[in-house]
Amino acid sequence: MRQLDELQSLIANAVSDLKFPEYPAELYEPIKYILALGGKRMRPALLLMACDLFGGDVNAALPPALAIEVFHNFTLMHDDIMDNAPKRRGKTTVHAKWNNNVAILSGDVMLIEGYKLMMQVRGNILRTVLDIFNDTAVGVCEGQQLDMTFETINDISITEYINMIRLKTAVVLGGALKIGALIGYADDQDADLLADFGVNLGIAFQLQDDILDVYGDPEKFGKQVGGDIISNKKTYLLIKAQELADSETAANLSRWLTATGFNATEKVAAVTDIYNHVNVRQYAEAEMRTYAEKSFAALEKIKLPEENKQYLREFADGLLVREF
Amino acid sequence: MRQLDELQSLIANAVSDLKFPEYPAELYEPIKYILALGGKRMRPALLLMACDLFGGDVNAALPPALAIEVFHNFTLMHDDIMDNAPKRRGKTTVHAKWNNNVAILSGDVMLIEGYKLMMQVRGNILRTVLDIFNDTAVGVCEGQQLDMTFETINDISITEYINMIRLKTAVVLGGALKIGALIGYADDQDADLLADFGVNLGIAFQLQDDILDVYGDPEKFGKQVGGDIISNKKTYLLIKAQELADSETAANLSRWLTATGFNATEKVAAVTDIYNHVNVRQYAEAEMRTYAEKSFAALEKIKLPEENKQYLREFADGLLVREF
Repeated sequence: MRQLDELQSLIANAVSDLKFPEYPAELYEPIKYILALGGKRMRPALLLMACDLFGGDVNAALPPALAIEVFHNFTLMHDDIMDNAPKRRGKTTVHAKWNNNVAILSGDVMLIEGYKLMMQVRGNILRTVLDIFNDTAVGVCEGQQLDMTFETINDISITEYINMIRLKTAVVLGGALKIGALIGYADDQDADLLADFGVNLGIAFQLQDDILDVYGDPEKFGKQVGGDIISNKKTYLLIKAQELADSETAANLSRWLTATGFNATEKVAAVTDIYNHVNVRQYAEAEMRTYAEKSFAALEKIKLPEENKQYLREFADGLLVREF
Repeated sequence: MRQLDELQSLIANAVSDLKFPEYPAELYEPIKYILALGGKRMRPALLLMACDLFGGDVNAALPPALAIEVFHNFTLMHDDIMDNAPKRRGKTTVHAKWNNNVAILSGDVMLIEGYKLMMQVRGNILRTVLDIFNDTAVGVCEGQQLDMTFETINDISITEYINMIRLKTAVVLGGALKIGALIGYADDQDADLLADFGVNLGIAFQLQDDILDVYGDPEKFGKQVGGDIISNKKTYLLIKAQELADSETAANLSRWLTATGFNATEKVAAVTDIYNHVNVRQYAEAEMRTYAEKSFAALEKIKLPEENKQYLREFADGLLVREF
């Protein structure tokens, strides 16, 4: 089995070899620009990994893996407009460097280019692969819409939140793994199980991200601790804390959520105190474990040699514990 | 053969029967809204017409025809953001009724929904049909980008202009006809010829539109005469007039193009005088005839009964002369 870093560098090379027309420059330059910003290329690497684990030809899986990466970058290009984000991976975002219209239209072309790449599979799985890609793509858009909607409303349930992160973050991992498995000649049942593994792992990973924002080691986490608290981001911790809080604690939390002109460090400390007071961390970790266990349970049922399953287990363990 | 109005109402009914999820409402409501605005449904009707002319089952062609209509409305939703247009078919545009983010994301989902509908063809033409759809979709985006770019530069050639309208307007007519023909079991050669018919007819139609803006009967044309002149739109007439003008006329034209606070009626009259002075109308009509003839020449070569070709000829004649 190929190691993750080997798969990632296969993708990195294939991304830099991708060819787009020169004309019209305003349409294709932004595509080259965002794809060159780098990133861990985790989603396409998962597609290759799935193909490899079932004994398939990794080179045959490269175009669909690139499709997943191009699709992912299309969502980033449009999300950055919607979030009004000035930076992406430390560089100016496309809409800020060019303008919104360029970012809209270049993004549209990237989605189409994603389909062109995804179609480069053998004929007998073409329809199935595209069905998965369609469902994945719609799911990601639904997740992005829910994420934006949730920022404007206050009574989101944990069920709704988990559904949102499943759509926005997790389905694309499941979709990439399932497509890779099918290219590697997995049967439908194994492909579904691997998708299940990916989706549940993705949810667990996002819940971990929510926990790390508050309780992570800032040096290992690589982000500002408390960033979600400062921006009032609707995370598992915030939603669950609101649910668990008695009326006095809820009022206190609400004051911090509506405060303006606050001291950031003070707000992070105060909201963390509230989180600790209602023991929200233990709920979040239990929820995360639930999804990790679902993920591992799906993995157990896959008809693969123990060695291959162990590879996936270690991959998942690496994702889920490395940053605490 | 079914009449155009019958095909148009088939489409209209199928569009109103289209089902989208209820949730998230912000994602799917705008799609239902823009599709309900109506329009002539000409593009999908052409797809059905092509299928019908080759003796295919029009019902089998309905989902791909809807794909073309959903795709077309995706481009309208995104174009309206880019053009900052407040109205579409007399109703508030999606980005104005909701906001830009909603229009971006709902448009993205429409493009995916277009693929889902387009995939509803028999297996042995799936890849070919999607290849055509991909090329069409990329072409339309390239055309829209060129149209935006051309608004900001002054030395566009007629060749570049024709290429832009080919991409922005004509390729989707060719693509719709070609896909319909293939669904109707046309051979590849006939499908290509019908696409050629459609693309050249589309270019002729757009050139006619440029001419009608200045020389059309306002009652028959249904638009304000001189609208393109008032907004300095880069049309065939303007580009060709700049090319034909002597230095004095060019300076006069340039003054009107850079004028601010002008009287609209006066500007339309003055620019029309310049157009008449350089005889631009005869060039435009000659160019339009060239593309109409290319269109009819492609039609002649198609292996279809004379009666069916006559149907297409009359359809084209109807498009090209009805509004003068």
